Amino acid sequence: MTVVKQSHLFTKTRREAPSDEVSKNAQLLIRAGFIHKEMAGVYDLLPLGLRTLEKINTIIREEMNAIGGQEVFLSALQDKALWEKTDRWSDDVVDNWFKTRLKNDAELGLGFTHEEPLTVLMTGHISSYRDLPRAVYQIQTKFRNELRAKSGIMRGREFLMKDLYSFCKNDEEQATFYERAKEAYTKVFDRVGLGDRTYLTFASGGVFSKYSHEFQTVSDAGEDLIYVDEKKGIAINKEVLTDEVINDLGVTRESLIEKSAIEVGNIFNLGTRFSEALGLTYKTEDGKTAPVVMGSYGIGPTRLMGTIAEVLADEKGLIWPKSVAPFGVHLIEIGGEKADVREAAEKLSLTLAQKGIDVLHDDRDIRAGEKFADADLIGIPIRIVVSEKTIATNSCEIKMRTETESQIVSYEEAIDRVHSS
Amino acid sequence: MTVVKQSHLFTKTRREAPSDEVSKNAQLLIRAGFIHKEMAGVYDLLPLGLRTLEKINTIIREEMNAIGGQEVFLSALQDKALWEKTDRWSDDVVDNWFKTRLKNDAELGLGFTHEEPLTVLMTGHISSYRDLPRAVYQIQTKFRNELRAKSGIMRGREFLMKDLYSFCKNDEEQATFYERAKEAYTKVFDRVGLGDRTYLTFASGGVFSKYSHEFQTVSDAGEDLIYVDEKKGIAINKEVLTDEVINDLGVTRESLIEKSAIEVGNIFNLGTRFSEALGLTYKTEDGKTAPVVMGSYGIGPTRLMGTIAEVLADEKGLIWPKSVAPFGVHLIEIGGEKADVREAAEKLSLTLAQKGIDVLHDDRDIRAGEKFADADLIGIPIRIVVSEKTIATNSCEIKMRTETESQIVSYEEAIDRVHSS
Repeated sequence: MTVVKQSHLFTKTRREAPSDEVSKNAQLLIRAGFIHKEMAGVYDLLPLGLRTLEKINTIIREEMNAIGGQEVFLSALQDKALWEKTDRWSDDVVDNWFKTRLKNDAELGLGFTHEEPLTVLMTGHISSYRDLPRAVYQIQTKFRNELRAKSGIMRGREFLMKDLYSFCKNDEEQATFYERAKEAYTKVFDRVGLGDRTYLTFASGGVFSKYSHEFQTVSDAGEDLIYVDEKKGIAINKEVLTDEVINDLGVTRESLIEKSAIEVGNIFNLGTRFSEALGLTYKTEDGKTAPVVMGSYGIGPTRLMGTIAEVLADEKGLIWPKSVAPFGVHLIEIGGEKADVREAAEKLSLTLAQKGIDVLHDDRDIRAGEKFADADLIGIPIRIVVSEKTIATNSCEIKMRTETESQIVSYEEAIDRVHSS
Repeated sequence: MTVVKQSHLFTKTRREAPSDEVSKNAQLLIRAGFIHKEMAGVYDLLPLGLRTLEKINTIIREEMNAIGGQEVFLSALQDKALWEKTDRWSDDVVDNWFKTRLKNDAELGLGFTHEEPLTVLMTGHISSYRDLPRAVYQIQTKFRNELRAKSGIMRGREFLMKDLYSFCKNDEEQATFYERAKEAYTKVFDRVGLGDRTYLTFASGGVFSKYSHEFQTVSDAGEDLIYVDEKKGIAINKEVLTDEVINDLGVTRESLIEKSAIEVGNIFNLGTRFSEALGLTYKTEDGKTAPVVMGSYGIGPTRLMGTIAEVLADEKGLIWPKSVAPFGVHLIEIGGEKADVREAAEKLSLTLAQKGIDVLHDDRDIRAGEKFADADLIGIPIRIVVSEKTIATNSCEIKMRTETESQIVSYEEAIDRVHSS
């Protein structure tokens, strides 16, 4: 694994977020040097942010691959003709298109989702029941022309999206895959540290099924209202809160608590809406032609990163779960101008790296107080301090980001704690 | 490493490329299932293509990190105000912008390069000589509204670009970094298998230096004309072929051979053009304020993939160097409906994977001839065949993609050859 010296890292922390930034997640991420704001709803990822995002992406990839997902990367530029076939080109139907033009004046769109191009693409690769089921996904930039963008990286005009699409022979096969995707989603939210506050939420199903499912993370910053049955661990989106639904799910109005929440994932049955409009059919085992049954499954990795920042942070700064932290350990040397302190810090960094831990080594020549404040702001889960005092007893000081007390321990003990944390 | 069963891979090869596709690289990549064409100059990456692209990206990342590069990911959406400051917003100055609009009608651009936003971003992180030098890069989608797009993925309207930018105290520090970047680029082209046909090429330097440098890969499909001195291993772009330049470089007109070539990389000194216009300054050691000296360094990973496809392919299909092949071995079973053949193929796949080799295992129930034709088209460097005949003698048949003869060898020998190839 890697050791990065903080003097090498080009980003600096800052005391204040830009005055026009109103969301807590973006304020903290900007101050800690994870992201940079280009304009409302448009953010750049800096090295720390990109490291965390890549860890989120890796978790998502592993879970999508585990259910048979095959990764692709589709273009952002979209052909008008394709979207007219499904009646989703007009701005009256889809109100968040960004559109642009070729030199010959032909209109193009910037993809806000990818059902249309992927369905057409699959017509070249699916022709028989033997080719089904398939699951195809990408982690790719989406563009949505939001009227308002005040939730930081939780609602961007340009953002990263993992969108998986399933292609099945019939409703039954689709239902089976849908259940597997639901479980994979639950694993993703567990692994990134949001499991205990994220609810499987019943939402509007559209034409092809009674419900779709959202994964909603409880947070005051959420834009959605959900009604949670905490005992059953499920929730209902306000948009479908009817007596019929309450009855369907076997809950009661009394058991439901209203909460604000952030939609961190959603899964849909699409039926044959896209396959029929775009000609994605296959030959059945008995020689008939049938439309492919589809589903779509979204998670926004940048939104997920914003949500983790938003809901886990404290008054001192960010708090990353180990699974998505940019580094496993923030190793702070105090008095590094002394060769023996620097040497001890470098040796410990290297040992940790050899054991598979990414280390951010704060070798900067600034006051200890500033280093501690930066460490709290950046939010790496474990802080280890090496100073002249600690090296005198062959030890170091270890503190979890979520705790207030630090402890003096031997190097071996520190390494053990990092491993078992 | 991974074993992928070809029956699981959703892409199929095809006999014909789309009739409107005129470039050899895209024709082959489409037929082999690496890419899909959305429209002229706009392509999707399919699983095989994404695997090769990721290997190219990893090589580029390793070489950029080795010269101190720190990775970021900037937005595609661009703020008009920023680009007006450097006089690069107007379509009269930059003729390949894609532009779009927010709901409030404010104009936005889609980034064709990123000097402007990154320079502004760096004003938040560079203030003193102690903060320099820095090197920052990204691998990110660029949009260029090309009038014509007939070179497949070698000239896309939407394409992946690695763009690195250097930030230095003065011309001398910039010159030192520039030389290191030049060496890193040479390593990239060597590692992806284009070294022996790629020339360091002198090109127009713009305002801030006499020359810029291009890396040009010789190919009939190239859009550039270069003049190569094969003994010295350097070339001159036609655009700067003057007596002065010939004299400068110590070559003679007689030693120069005209060749068509593909520009696979370019490096530029930018001087203080962007730092002065956008206010990126630093305090010098003696307390003065000075503008940061910059350089920019580009490689298009998708173009590189297209170039490798274009120049290394033969009449049967693609030929990937080991370093960027989607898989290390294409393992073909013949007669896999027999349990012992399937078992032998699976056992060998697993052994190869355990030794760090990615394997595409062709377990499809189709004719051997079709499998061989597909293997040649896809272009994985080593083909291993397991059949009832071979397993009878505990052996397999191995053939390099670039050779015509295959050989019957023991499993151990096959594994050794894969390793030493």
